[in-house]
Amino acid sequence: MAVYTHLGAEELARLVANYDVGELVSAKGIAEGVSNSNWLLETNQARFILTMYERRIDTDDLPFFLGLLDHLSAAGCPVPATIHDREGAAWRMVDDKAVALIEFLPGVSPTQPDRAQAYAVGRALAEMHLAARDFSGARKNDLAPEDTLAILQTCGSDALGRIDPALPAILDDGARIASNWPQGLPTGIIHSDLFPDNVLMLDSEVTGLIDFYFACTGAMAYDLAVTHAAWSFGEDGSRNDTTLGSALILGYESLRPLSSEEFEALPLLAQGACLRFIASRAQDWLDTPADALVQRKDPMDFMRRLEFYRDRGQSAFA
Amino acid sequence: MAVYTHLGAEELARLVANYDVGELVSAKGIAEGVSNSNWLLETNQARFILTMYERRIDTDDLPFFLGLLDHLSAAGCPVPATIHDREGAAWRMVDDKAVALIEFLPGVSPTQPDRAQAYAVGRALAEMHLAARDFSGARKNDLAPEDTLAILQTCGSDALGRIDPALPAILDDGARIASNWPQGLPTGIIHSDLFPDNVLMLDSEVTGLIDFYFACTGAMAYDLAVTHAAWSFGEDGSRNDTTLGSALILGYESLRPLSSEEFEALPLLAQGACLRFIASRAQDWLDTPADALVQRKDPMDFMRRLEFYRDRGQSAFA
Repeated sequence: MAVYTHLGAEELARLVANYDVGELVSAKGIAEGVSNSNWLLETNQARFILTMYERRIDTDDLPFFLGLLDHLSAAGCPVPATIHDREGAAWRMVDDKAVALIEFLPGVSPTQPDRAQAYAVGRALAEMHLAARDFSGARKNDLAPEDTLAILQTCGSDALGRIDPALPAILDDGARIASNWPQGLPTGIIHSDLFPDNVLMLDSEVTGLIDFYFACTGAMAYDLAVTHAAWSFGEDGSRNDTTLGSALILGYESLRPLSSEEFEALPLLAQGACLRFIASRAQDWLDTPADALVQRKDPMDFMRRLEFYRDRGQSAFA
Repeated sequence: MAVYTHLGAEELARLVANYDVGELVSAKGIAEGVSNSNWLLETNQARFILTMYERRIDTDDLPFFLGLLDHLSAAGCPVPATIHDREGAAWRMVDDKAVALIEFLPGVSPTQPDRAQAYAVGRALAEMHLAARDFSGARKNDLAPEDTLAILQTCGSDALGRIDPALPAILDDGARIASNWPQGLPTGIIHSDLFPDNVLMLDSEVTGLIDFYFACTGAMAYDLAVTHAAWSFGEDGSRNDTTLGSALILGYESLRPLSSEEFEALPLLAQGACLRFIASRAQDWLDTPADALVQRKDPMDFMRRLEFYRDRGQSAFA
């Protein structure tokens, strides 16, 4: 969470003038997003999120990401629409960086979700999968198990062991997961990063699914497995709340029942989800100085989740 | 600018429930304030800034700071009022840290102010000085020239020279400023940190004076000198815009004309202002690792300002 770039009030006002949204009356840099700078802008008409794409995001992917927001929003999903400028463009360049103006949605992200909230999130995820079926865009998942395993292999066993002595075991788990990865499951557009941070809620109502910058084409059941891994554990992964996980799946299946192949694949899909977050956290950990002000996230939080799914198998989803 | 502490949505909702402000519908950590964590909160009634006091601020000073906001707001100054909780308290404790809920004010901070804006800020500063005359609180200025000189002496000539070879000269300048510091000027409550960051404006109207956490009892003309040093130079201090400085003083004197003693003291008062920012920046520079993600501010920006005021004398304010 950061604001990487400083944009002055005058620059923001000039930028906003390219849109038919009224005049700027307030602008606050907000501490959201790890790859972007974000501002909460207010005009005399409405509020907006201004996102500046800083790193990790390829401008060539913006038509997919922003077009997806528009498609899902138009289909009635609680997803922020992109505001197009007076010339119809979904993003503009400012100082060689792409920026997009996005609809502001109310709601707060739960940190201790309850069952009703997990149910609502599962249902919103299924709604999103169904609404995306007629979206014309596609984007390859570049964080599939073979990709994330390669990241961990590049880190190397020694470096992983310096993070935690138990972490190098992920290399064997990763190889097993990648070589057994389920094929032929129903695919669609998936969010693939639906942590509580990326969901806005009011009580038990989902008011926003946000941060689609890992969205890609993939197995829809994998998206559910990612969400299960992200929602149904204590923060450090040591405590699984099966009632939350069950509510999530129940909510999902209220709109899109899983096939038996999908259900049986969940334990491995969830391990693949954990593998991915272990890889990105390990890479960030090794790239971030220990005394940096950014809080490093412990990859072991997801190693414990992976072990849970590996050891419990299908019963993790009972 | 940072959010040092994570407060979850549930914790924020519980906190907000202590105030008669409606129910929480949105919460964004905002990148403002160097000593505090800040959130922009929205309820179904209004918007607020929630400030958590992290460091540098002594809880014993909160009655002064927050009482001053209430006093100035009630007097019609564009200053955010403190929201008191249902028991009347201006601040509460959360996890051993004090938090206060503050009125949200519209406006953006100019980064390239024009003359009309400088005039308006000068006038708002004088209005604030006049409105504070019947405020009963008082607080010693702990960043007077002898204090800031002591900070620089503790840094030491060698360390200052490692920041910039021209910086150790500040020790002689500081001794001269401290020993010649004007006495007997009219005092009152001063903001003492009125950089453009701490002013919210809509066009040429001041909609907010914020961040009073350096406010103290002091010479009112010193506050004007601080504001002059903060507003009328290019960012690195190399270019003085005399028209901005003149407009600022003109605006101030439209409400509170300076005495001849105050006007004659301005060159030394402005050097004292520079001394203070040189000291705090040098200290932060030496305390901050070069590879930290926080941008260090160059003390030389204010060394150049100090030299300008020293060399130009009274003509700096012509």
